[in-house]
Amino acid sequence: MGQKIPLTVREVPSGKQVLDWIIPKEWNIREAYIKNSRGERIVDLRSSNLHVMSYSAPVHAHLGLKELSEHIYTLPEQPDLIPYRTSYYSENWAFCMSHAQFLSLEDDIYEVFIDSDLKLGHLTFGEAKHQGQTTDEVLLSAHICHPSLANDNCSGLALLACLAERLASRKTRYTYRFLFAPATIGAITWLAENFDSLKIKHGLVMSCVGDGGGPTYKSSRLGDAMIDRAMRHVLTYSFPHADLLDFIPYGYDERQYCSPGFNLPVGLFQRSRFGTFPEYHTSADNLDFIKPKHLASSFNAIWDAIDVLESNRRLLNTKPYGEPQLGRYDLYSPVGGDKRTAERNMAMLWILNLSDGQQTLLDIAERSKLPFKVIRDAAEVLESRGLLSECDAN
Amino acid sequence: MGQKIPLTVREVPSGKQVLDWIIPKEWNIREAYIKNSRGERIVDLRSSNLHVMSYSAPVHAHLGLKELSEHIYTLPEQPDLIPYRTSYYSENWAFCMSHAQFLSLEDDIYEVFIDSDLKLGHLTFGEAKHQGQTTDEVLLSAHICHPSLANDNCSGLALLACLAERLASRKTRYTYRFLFAPATIGAITWLAENFDSLKIKHGLVMSCVGDGGGPTYKSSRLGDAMIDRAMRHVLTYSFPHADLLDFIPYGYDERQYCSPGFNLPVGLFQRSRFGTFPEYHTSADNLDFIKPKHLASSFNAIWDAIDVLESNRRLLNTKPYGEPQLGRYDLYSPVGGDKRTAERNMAMLWILNLSDGQQTLLDIAERSKLPFKVIRDAAEVLESRGLLSECDAN
Amino acid sequence: MGQKIPLTVREVPSGKQVLDWIIPKEWNIREAYIKNSRGERIVDLRSSNLHVMSYSAPVHAHLGLKELSEHIYTLPEQPDLIPYRTSYYSENWAFCMSHAQFLSLEDDIYEVFIDSDLKLGHLTFGEAKHQGQTTDEVLLSAHICHPSLANDNCSGLALLACLAERLASRKTRYTYRFLFAPATIGAITWLAENFDSLKIKHGLVMSCVGDGGGPTYKSSRLGDAMIDRAMRHVLTYSFPHADLLDFIPYGYDERQYCSPGFNLPVGLFQRSRFGTFPEYHTSADNLDFIKPKHLASSFNAIWDAIDVLESNRRLLNTKPYGEPQLGRYDLYSPVGGDKRTAERNMAMLWILNLSDGQQTLLDIAERSKLPFKVIRDAAEVLESRGLLSECDAN
Repeated sequence: MGQKIPLTVREVPSGKQVLDWIIPKEWNIREAYIKNSRGERIVDLRSSNLHVMSYSAPVHAHLGLKELSEHIYTLPEQPDLIPYRTSYYSENWAFCMSHAQFLSLEDDIYEVFIDSDLKLGHLTFGEAKHQGQTTDEVLLSAHICHPSLANDNCSGLALLACLAERLASRKTRYTYRFLFAPATIGAITWLAENFDSLKIKHGLVMSCVGDGGGPTYKSSRLGDAMIDRAMRHVLTYSFPHADLLDFIPYGYDERQYCSPGFNLPVGLFQRSRFGTFPEYHTSADNLDFIKPKHLASSFNAIWDAIDVLESNRRLLNTKPYGEPQLGRYDLYSPVGGDKRTAERNMAMLWILNLSDGQQTLLDIAERSKLPFKVIRDAAEVLESRGLLSECDAN
Repeated sequence: MGQKIPLTVREVPSGKQVLDWIIPKEWNIREAYIKNSRGERIVDLRSSNLHVMSYSAPVHAHLGLKELSEHIYTLPEQPDLIPYRTSYYSENWAFCMSHAQFLSLEDDIYEVFIDSDLKLGHLTFGEAKHQGQTTDEVLLSAHICHPSLANDNCSGLALLACLAERLASRKTRYTYRFLFAPATIGAITWLAENFDSLKIKHGLVMSCVGDGGGPTYKSSRLGDAMIDRAMRHVLTYSFPHADLLDFIPYGYDERQYCSPGFNLPVGLFQRSRFGTFPEYHTSADNLDFIKPKHLASSFNAIWDAIDVLESNRRLLNTKPYGEPQLGRYDLYSPVGGDKRTAERNMAMLWILNLSDGQQTLLDIAERSKLPFKVIRDAAEVLESRGLLSECDAN
Repeated sequence: MGQKIPLTVREVPSGKQVLDWIIPKEWNIREAYIKNSRGERIVDLRSSNLHVMSYSAPVHAHLGLKELSEHIYTLPEQPDLIPYRTSYYSENWAFCMSHAQFLSLEDDIYEVFIDSDLKLGHLTFGEAKHQGQTTDEVLLSAHICHPSLANDNCSGLALLACLAERLASRKTRYTYRFLFAPATIGAITWLAENFDSLKIKHGLVMSCVGDGGGPTYKSSRLGDAMIDRAMRHVLTYSFPHADLLDFIPYGYDERQYCSPGFNLPVGLFQRSRFGTFPEYHTSADNLDFIKPKHLASSFNAIWDAIDVLESNRRLLNTKPYGEPQLGRYDLYSPVGGDKRTAERNMAMLWILNLSDGQQTLLDIAERSKLPFKVIRDAAEVLESRGLLSECDAN
């Protein structure tokens, strides 16, 4: 990521209070395995880093099968997959393996070895910023918890990096802030660190954005924030079966951004909804599960929503009494004809009719049931003919 | 009733003006029969007090069948049932009988005898009061018109008495007023007598609460009063097929309470809607028609609604910035597991997210689609950990 | 029309600026034909005035079939119909004919002749006024573009004339203005001429009101103006399948009345929606297509809506505490019985319950789901008994 975009890495020490939380100790793991009595490593961290429950305490012991079983997680209903398990706040250790492998374990004496430590260190997060014309910010946020979860973790990070890269060359109205941080505690820490200087006008959490499901948009706590309307609008056109959900206080880091003290207009964009696809939190959430074309269509949906945020304005019809004589402005194709011309003509009529100083281009797109892009383009043409004037920055 | 609860009986004299009405004369009946020429009592008030139309004038005469027929009410489509008829305001007399009996009458000379009188007397109603911590009142009202109508009349009176009895031993926030009065004129009289001192914050009329239909809740004229929301909420969970109706100005005594000058937040609770079941206003509305289990479930629904009224509060999240670190408060089951734990956890997240000083527990229950009881219990736990503070009495 | 109602004809000269428009030159046509080389008039204006594209420039020439074809409009998918074409603002000429005839044209030299001119003249429109008790106006408007389009043009004019004739003998609250004008430029001109003295409180454009489709009501830009509510209400009862549409800025002259500078409460009433029936803008939109019975039912719907506008009032229940004792006012049929009596009784209860000084009779009709007429009649009876008093003119 640091190669694609200029990433600022920030570290906050263990033990520091961040909002209601304390930065935990830092967990590191170097090696972990289970050996059978013939000395064969039947489970090895090096073959999959899902094999060790995150935050496992160090251990070195010889155990019978029964005793070992108490430290093993499997998924009996998905017998070929390794589960992803974590135990942040209780001192414990465990291995994760496929249920098939577990069933094949013989009665034996096993050597278990986990070389980990949990000690004072840092919580690390990365941040990038694209400066816009104003200091009003758009927050785009993805979480980084485990490197092996392709859709749940990596797809969001990749999409965030692509958005940052693409925006870098654009002149924008808003300043964009890209946050790559551990789920929950990372967002909490970032909010704590920026408590007195938050300028978030719109925001989006993204996760699980590489599979072919959904897409799913969960509105912010506000429910009708501009980002909510923008996402719903663009999804309506690009994905007629998109799943548009009301806010609930369960999910990813929008939980923190939408807590009542902050109440930021931050929504959640996903493809398949987290927890609803069988690959979720297993070894099947790997690179085979996500596809470039799905990442691309996720990118496009968010990019279109960003375009709404950037282009939305409130304009004023300069000839509000009756319709202007469009023919005199070289605006009205007399022959009409194809569907695109018809749509453009309707867009012009809607914009002229509703640009009374109260309604924005997004309001007009919503009421006319025309795509925002069509409205925006038609508004530019009308403005160029002097039929619309700038009302104010929205 | 007077045995179960301390009932104050009030009498208001005939001729007194109450609101737009005049207390009518008091009707009393001692004996009534029809005898055939052989001296046999073929109809006798003693076998069913539905046999005489209420408010019948006294009569003693000998009539042929044709003449008698003009003073007989039957239900040709329900030939075995005796109808319930009343004629408050026109001087007249009539007998009611089954259509089967009517068809069997021979051409004969009949002796009709009604020993009734309609003279200056009193309108009588009963009232009980349960004193709460505040003088704000909850009005619970049932009508008493005819002692033989089990569902239409007696079930409501019985339920009211049970509620009064149960509440007697409780410490409540609200003061409860239980009114047992004749329909219409009784409610009118009570309103007139209490015109200057009404403190009704919530109210419920109950009638036809012992059959197995519905239940039916008809909202108050306000439509979104707390009692309306409470009743709709509890019925949604206890009776998924409950019939939730908008206000109409036809029905029982909520007509008076919801007249525009008072506009009190009083709804109507019924099982089967009045007038829609074949037993309504006939001799079949008897004790066989109502069942203890239906009375019990009616009781429970109203009791749950009272619990909402009593327990609803507006609380304030004391850690509104980000989520509190629930693990530190011994609140978050790390393993999760069963459905009830999941529901409790979601309830906690919803309460913390929405307790911004604006929203009550009922608001939160409605938005989260969780039962009020689950929200109330979770709020108590959060409050005990210092995560919520009392905002104000709602 | 001038025979039915006193019509004031107004002329506005070519070249005059009206709002954003310029009154165009006046087009007149005397003769037009296509002759084949045998001198036969194969197309003649006298047989159908749709044969010449409106606003065609004069021409006299001899052309081969290929060259002629570039000046001919047909409807290949409706091969027996002559299309209606117009070219307001580009200097051009063309003939319109059936596609069947076009296919039968031989390779020949044709003489084309159009004796038209486009020169300074006038735009003409007709206006009639019915003076009411107040100067608040109801605008009823139909367009007159081409005399051969029976449904699109003439039906609206005929309906307007009938309404004017019927209203002439009535004493009304509102003043009614009837406008017969060319589409678009006519409405624009009328608005320009009356710019400083507009008193329009309600308005209706009518067109395509003689066929058996729809009816269709398109709301004003305001969406919930009294005329919108009145039209929706009456159509709900008279045409259960009426098509009730939201405003769009495309259609007839409501486009001008509903432009943002004026934003007048003017809706559009049609039977079949314009552009959706195959006869639209062809020679099949003739007198066979429209029927007296459809014109009559269109008339009745609008007349009923006018009745709502005229009769709607806000009344005050003079006995707002409890229900009045209706029996004492000779208002309550004790026996009840037929459906009409039941409806009248319910209307009385609704009116008494809702006449709190806030709600109009139309509000009450909407909430009670009873026809406005039933509410209005019941209110008159209650008023005659002193149970309602005039609150204010609505």
